[in-house]
Order: sequence, then structure tokens, then C-alpha cells
Amino acid sequence: MKLPTDQQQDLLRFAYDTAIEAGEIALRFFRKPTGVMNKAGGDAFDPVTEADREVERHLRAAITQRFSDHAIVGEEFANTHGKSDFTWVIDPIDGTRAFISGVPAWGILLGLCWQGRPMFGLMHQPYTGETFIGLQDKEPAAWFMRNQFDLQNPLLASTVKTLDDAVLYSTHPDLFDSSPAGEFERFRRVADACKLLRYGGDCYSYCLLAMGQIDLVIESGLQSYDILPLLPIVEAAGGFVTDWQGQPLSGGGSVVAAAGPELHAQALELLQGPL
Amino acid sequence: MKLPTDQQQDLLRFAYDTAIEAGEIALRFFRKPTGVMNKAGGDAFDPVTEADREVERHLRAAITQRFSDHAIVGEEFANTHGKSDFTWVIDPIDGTRAFISGVPAWGILLGLCWQGRPMFGLMHQPYTGETFIGLQDKEPAAWFMRNQFDLQNPLLASTVKTLDDAVLYSTHPDLFDSSPAGEFERFRRVADACKLLRYGGDCYSYCLLAMGQIDLVIESGLQSYDILPLLPIVEAAGGFVTDWQGQPLSGGGSVVAAAGPELHAQALELLQGPL
Repeated sequence: MKLPTDQQQDLLRFAYDTAIEAGEIALRFFRKPTGVMNKAGGDAFDPVTEADREVERHLRAAITQRFSDHAIVGEEFANTHGKSDFTWVIDPIDGTRAFISGVPAWGILLGLCWQGRPMFGLMHQPYTGETFIGLQDKEPAAWFMRNQFDLQNPLLASTVKTLDDAVLYSTHPDLFDSSPAGEFERFRRVADACKLLRYGGDCYSYCLLAMGQIDLVIESGLQSYDILPLLPIVEAAGGFVTDWQGQPLSGGGSVVAAAGPELHAQALELLQGPL
Repeated sequence: MKLPTDQQQDLLRFAYDTAIEAGEIALRFFRKPTGVMNKAGGDAFDPVTEADREVERHLRAAITQRFSDHAIVGEEFANTHGKSDFTWVIDPIDGTRAFISGVPAWGILLGLCWQGRPMFGLMHQPYTGETFIGLQDKEPAAWFMRNQFDLQNPLLASTVKTLDDAVLYSTHPDLFDSSPAGEFERFRRVADACKLLRYGGDCYSYCLLAMGQIDLVIESGLQSYDILPLLPIVEAAGGFVTDWQGQPLSGGGSVVAAAGPELHAQALELLQGPL
């Protein structure tokens, strides 16, 4: 089994420990009455809890204290510029709608990029004690951990190669543009060809894909901090991820994450072809 | 705080201990490669894992050993007739689609009816260690437990009284008849009036409703063993449950479960009125 170098392991261990601390902060707010603010204003419902801000504050402070020259990009606060090639990407609570509903499908996302390319990514779900880590390297590797830092349990995407054997997840049908011949119709065409479609899941879906439990995640309208920390987890587990045009993800936008390239190609064909 | 009588507590404790044992059996199959059989046959996808059968076997054996005169109704095996007024209702793994996807939103459901009316219901999620229990009595009460039998944490539904403050959950849009002026259009009308709609959740949604985390669950096409053990959990926590016609649930079918009667009435009006 692939093991990280000492330097990589130090970085992974720092990220893990910091995410665990942040998770304890998040749990102080989970399933508790909290002040839910409305970030979008007006009628739009974009809940941001106090937890979101507290968690990001903690992650930023820990990173700045340990790596004062690293840049930081996060959801809740302005970018911190750095003098090194390293940039941390933070989504303090990905899946705030799950969070405010009491559903433990949200996660703390923390990724590290080197020269703009993801080096590793981590998702931590503190209520279940689960952590998923993926490391990009010549020989990529991804691990599942529960309640302890542990490089014993590799994450491996499934071997499913055809849509009719595939389980597809997506957070919500309203993610997609529902105009005629638009995103939703195209998504629906893939869904109809799959064995099973389920909604819900948020960042947890990408981790289940890396774990080989589901085979396909298709979404749209993502932000870069939503997906960048998840990308190494899926890819290092053997998954294949692009946008709906088949291009590498440069930030947020649309996403097709599949257990492997064959399955990915079939999904892409139905997303792109004439309706 | 309301505490159960000694006899009630003995029954609750038996149900809890038996569900915990059954949960350990279920976890041997969860996230492991299992033989997924196709109960529906043909193209329909109705997964039943080995776990489903093993769990129900264990629950039936434990009940029969302790209460040889009690009747048993379960999902996987023929009804066991009894000579007493007690009937146990079992759904060994409610949410098999969540189960086979690796999502811990499934649960072991166990309910006890006396003279055909629910006396208590229990939902156990072994991966998260959570148990939700509701007891019907002159003074109903419901409790949340994690990793131990504990009557310290009462479940209380939310005080939300209007749809525009309500969070609505439902397992999947395909639960509903999608013909014109059919169930889905009516469901959608309620959803559009709510603060937030989320899919996914299965039996976990009813427990989150009892916990005050979400406010409304609307579904259709349920079986009696899907919902009977959940009913006392929701009602004893202060929730209000009927079918889409506003009638008490006599078995499965359609369900509107709300945090209280005001919210329930608003949902029912949109489900029933002219489109």
C-alpha cells in the first residue's frame, strides 16, 4: 500500500488534527438552536450559521500560525495572500442545508494546492467521526479514517463500468437549470439510464464515491471551495472527474464524478448529446 | 419529565437491547460487498440485502423467545399469529437504498401495538449509534439516545407554525404519482410554499422531525411496517400525522407528518385543494 512521504504525512497530520478541532467547534452548533443568518438576503434561502464562521476562523488561525507564508481561500472571509506556492482551500461547512436540518451529510472541507494544483484534500464529518483524505502524487492514494488518524484503510472507487449498474447521487434537482433542453433534462437522461438515482448527500456523496459505495455524482453550480478539496479524494481513489464539457475542473461550475473513465464517458455522452 | 411505568420500561428496554443486537448484525453487511438480490424482479430495482433477512430473523427470534404469545408482522417473512393483544411490527432495514449506497440514513424499525394501536415505536441507526423512541400513553413521551439506553433526552417537535418557516423532507420525487394534477404536482405546491425542500432521509427524516430539526415530512406509497413504528416517535414528540386525506393512518399509503396541527393543516390544504 502506498504511504505518504514524511513531509506529506506531516501536512496530512496537521490537516487532520486541525479538522478534528474544527469539528468539535461545529458540533457545538449542530442540532442546537442557532442564529441562522440569511447571507443571500431577500427571498433566497442561503443559510449560514455561526458555526460556518467559527469553523473557518479556527482553520485560518491554525494555518496562519503554522504556515505563515501560505495563502488561504475560504468561503466566509477574504482571501489571505501568501509568499509561498501553497494555497489552502476551506469550505468550513459544506452542506449547510444538511447541517441546519440535523442531517450528518455535511462536512468540513480542507484542501492544499501547490502551484495552483490540488496536492491533497480532506473531508471531515465530526458527528460520525469520519474523515476521508486523498493525496495527489506520482502514485496517488486515498484513505478512510474513523475516530483516529489511520493510513490502514484505502479508499477505492467501484469497478462499475456501465450506467445500468451505476448508483447516481446528486444533492438536489434544483441545482440544475430546468429550462427546455437544459441541464435538468440532460441530467435526467443520465439518471434514467442508471440503476438508481438518489438525492441528498452534499460532499458526503463524493466520499461515498471514493469508497466504492456509489458510482456517479453529477452536479452543477458549485463553487471552487465546494469541490477543490474533494477532487483529490475522488481521483486518488481511482475516480474520474471533469466538468460537463469533459474539461478538467478549474474551479467550480458543473461536475461529473465517476468511478472510472468508462462510466464517465457514458455519462458525458448523455449530458452532451442532442436531446 | 414523563417517565414510563415499570412495565413500559421493561418493554422499551427489551426493544432497545434487541435493536442494538440487530444493529450489530446489520453493520456486518453495511458498506461491505453483499449479495444484493432483486426482490421485485425484472427491471424494477428493489434491493434487499442479506442484512435485511438476518436482522429480521434475529428480531423475530428474540421476540418469540421472550414473548411467545405475541404476534409479529414483518417485511421479509410471513406474519406470526399470537394469542395476546400484542403485535410487534418490524422493518428490519428501512431505507435499503440508503443502506446499499453506504449512507447512514437507514434504520431498524421496531414497534409494538396493543389491540391494533401503536403503543411504542423505536428507530435504531447502528452506524451513528442513535436510537429514537416514542411511547403512546395518556401522557406521551419520546426520547433520543446515543450509544446507551437513556431517558434523559426528550424529543420535541419544533414550534414552526407556517409553511414559509418550514423545512420539508421527502425520500424521493419518484415516490409520487407524476400524472397531471397528480400527487407530485400537489406535493410540489407544498414544497414551493416551504422555506426549504430536501430529498433523501428515509426513516431518519421522521426522527429529525421528532427532534425539532425539520418541520414536515410528506411521502406516498409507504407500507404499514415502514410507518407504524415511526408514528409514536413523531406523535409523542408533539408532531401531527395523517394521510393526505386528513385521516388517521390505518397502515401504509400516503403520509403528512408535521411538527404540529397548524402546520399540518396548511400542508393538507395545498395537497387537497384544486390545482
